[in-house]
Amino acid sequence: MAEQPAVLRRILDRGAPQIHEVADRIAARAPRFVLLTARGTSDNAALYAKYLLEIRLGLPCGLTSMSTTTAYGARARLQDVLVITVSQSGGSPDLVDSTRAARDAGAITLAVTNNPDSPLAAVSEYHLDILAGPEKALPATKTYTASLLSLYLLVAGMAGADGREAARELPERAGEILARQDEVRRLASRYRFAERMVITSRGYGYPTAKEAALKLMETSYIPALSYSGADLLHGPLAMVDNISPVIAVVTDGKGGQALQPVLDRLRGRGADLVVVGPSAQVAAASAGFVLPTEGIAEEVQPVLEILPLQLLAYEVTIARGQDPDAPRALAKVTETH
Amino acid sequence: MAEQPAVLRRILDRGAPQIHEVADRIAARAPRFVLLTARGTSDNAALYAKYLLEIRLGLPCGLTSMSTTTAYGARARLQDVLVITVSQSGGSPDLVDSTRAARDAGAITLAVTNNPDSPLAAVSEYHLDILAGPEKALPATKTYTASLLSLYLLVAGMAGADGREAARELPERAGEILARQDEVRRLASRYRFAERMVITSRGYGYPTAKEAALKLMETSYIPALSYSGADLLHGPLAMVDNISPVIAVVTDGKGGQALQPVLDRLRGRGADLVVVGPSAQVAAASAGFVLPTEGIAEEVQPVLEILPLQLLAYEVTIARGQDPDAPRALAKVTETH
Repeated sequence: MAEQPAVLRRILDRGAPQIHEVADRIAARAPRFVLLTARGTSDNAALYAKYLLEIRLGLPCGLTSMSTTTAYGARARLQDVLVITVSQSGGSPDLVDSTRAARDAGAITLAVTNNPDSPLAAVSEYHLDILAGPEKALPATKTYTASLLSLYLLVAGMAGADGREAARELPERAGEILARQDEVRRLASRYRFAERMVITSRGYGYPTAKEAALKLMETSYIPALSYSGADLLHGPLAMVDNISPVIAVVTDGKGGQALQPVLDRLRGRGADLVVVGPSAQVAAASAGFVLPTEGIAEEVQPVLEILPLQLLAYEVTIARGQDPDAPRALAKVTETH
Repeated sequence: MAEQPAVLRRILDRGAPQIHEVADRIAARAPRFVLLTARGTSDNAALYAKYLLEIRLGLPCGLTSMSTTTAYGARARLQDVLVITVSQSGGSPDLVDSTRAARDAGAITLAVTNNPDSPLAAVSEYHLDILAGPEKALPATKTYTASLLSLYLLVAGMAGADGREAARELPERAGEILARQDEVRRLASRYRFAERMVITSRGYGYPTAKEAALKLMETSYIPALSYSGADLLHGPLAMVDNISPVIAVVTDGKGGQALQPVLDRLRGRGADLVVVGPSAQVAAASAGFVLPTEGIAEEVQPVLEILPLQLLAYEVTIARGQDPDAPRALAKVTETH
């Protein structure tokens, strides 16, 4: 987890040129739709890319339901479709199979992995190496933020921009956040006996909410339910009140503004609301973690937002007497077919 | 809930001709990509349609991230894109806004609602009336199965088929299932004190797993986590063991076959596994509900699969001393913007 500032710097220094080259070559092919394929943590990185592609490029996107190909043998018509497969190991057989099927069906295929020698990289037309280095802990942390930054530079490149300028301060700010572990440890104490948690956000922060829920579940085994703010109002709000503590990821920008009515409603219901976001939002909540987002564009804030939540998953797990580095049942390459 | 056999029959008798007419007109426009827009229960019906469209028509699909339009003002390029918006009330302002924006951007727009006089039906080029009649209980039940069957007939029509033959026995079998409430009540007793539940499936059964989780949470407030079988192996399996009871929705077909390794792994870990599916699968589990699926095509089984799980949500809620018809915080038209 602590390596993340160095990994982000490496991507900006060494990774960006190859990412821009891939972006130029894909942009020249003028894809009309994008399908994103991934599982677990990588699926949350793919969702972040979906927001970027839709907002910055106006490209309609979908997340692949892999079983339509692998179990049902669907043969999609994929001319002019860009298929991006995100996988840190690049080794899951179903991802390799579905990417090969997409390429056979005419798609432009791009693999985003932490392993250029992986089978997934081999079957894909293009490859981005996220340069995160070997990940020793089982729950993915640095590969997540490395995927986010790589995908950000890719989409910026496809939009004809450089992207490095907007991302320039991320490594330093990431280091500042990771140095505040004591603060997170104090927050973690309130979840030591929690039986459930709800994590919500909207817009660019929504993938962060999903990834935070996954990390918390993988390590602490607390059932952590993530909802976009709008979906939360469509039913699961019944679970909130004083039963479930709520963590809100509030981006400094339009996503945070769109979340405002949800935050007001949660406060009105007396929810235990912890905010990860700008200082004014944290001050209005039960507690929180102030994100240093001044001067950072909303679209790259997700690279920072997840960091206190990775620390939180770690600290909550320790507080509950479990081992955050080796959750039961978790393997690095998952052999789903 | 008890009206569902009659609603299904009404769709087959009275709804099918208008659905086929809409299907023909849309097929003539030759959409190349489909975006599905919905929230809550309707989102699960939309996910079912995504599987159908991908498998039967080879059309790549995506679920809309609505905030990209409503919060960030993204202007997607939607020529040749079919945008299907599913909403029982047809009244949520954000759904109306995003559908209007899609139509302005060149999309073929179709609203699937239970209200032909709704604002959503008005802004859409095409409209399917799911003919479910007024829904009095707050948790949506008959509008869910009515949406599934209407979407099935739509996709069958787009594929040049009729679809009524495959669906012919659904009303009667639905009635048989709903008459087995005593069986479900016995199953419900095991969840009276549950602190969490995991619901899994694969392929056509996955939307059922998500909808069952939503119903259980909305009414009983038990945190119910739904995962595709493959995603379950990528992390959340750590939460299973004897901590979380698991419900598996096992379709009689390829989705059920693809779920088999997950079921074996869960059994190997000693999970409390309840199966909704064919009798052989139920016999191999801790307990279950045998679905009468002989002779029913896998692609329409979701219309039946959800019924015992709707009953289960009801019975678990009664067992916990709560009111299943009026969960706190749930409203029929959710005013998200």
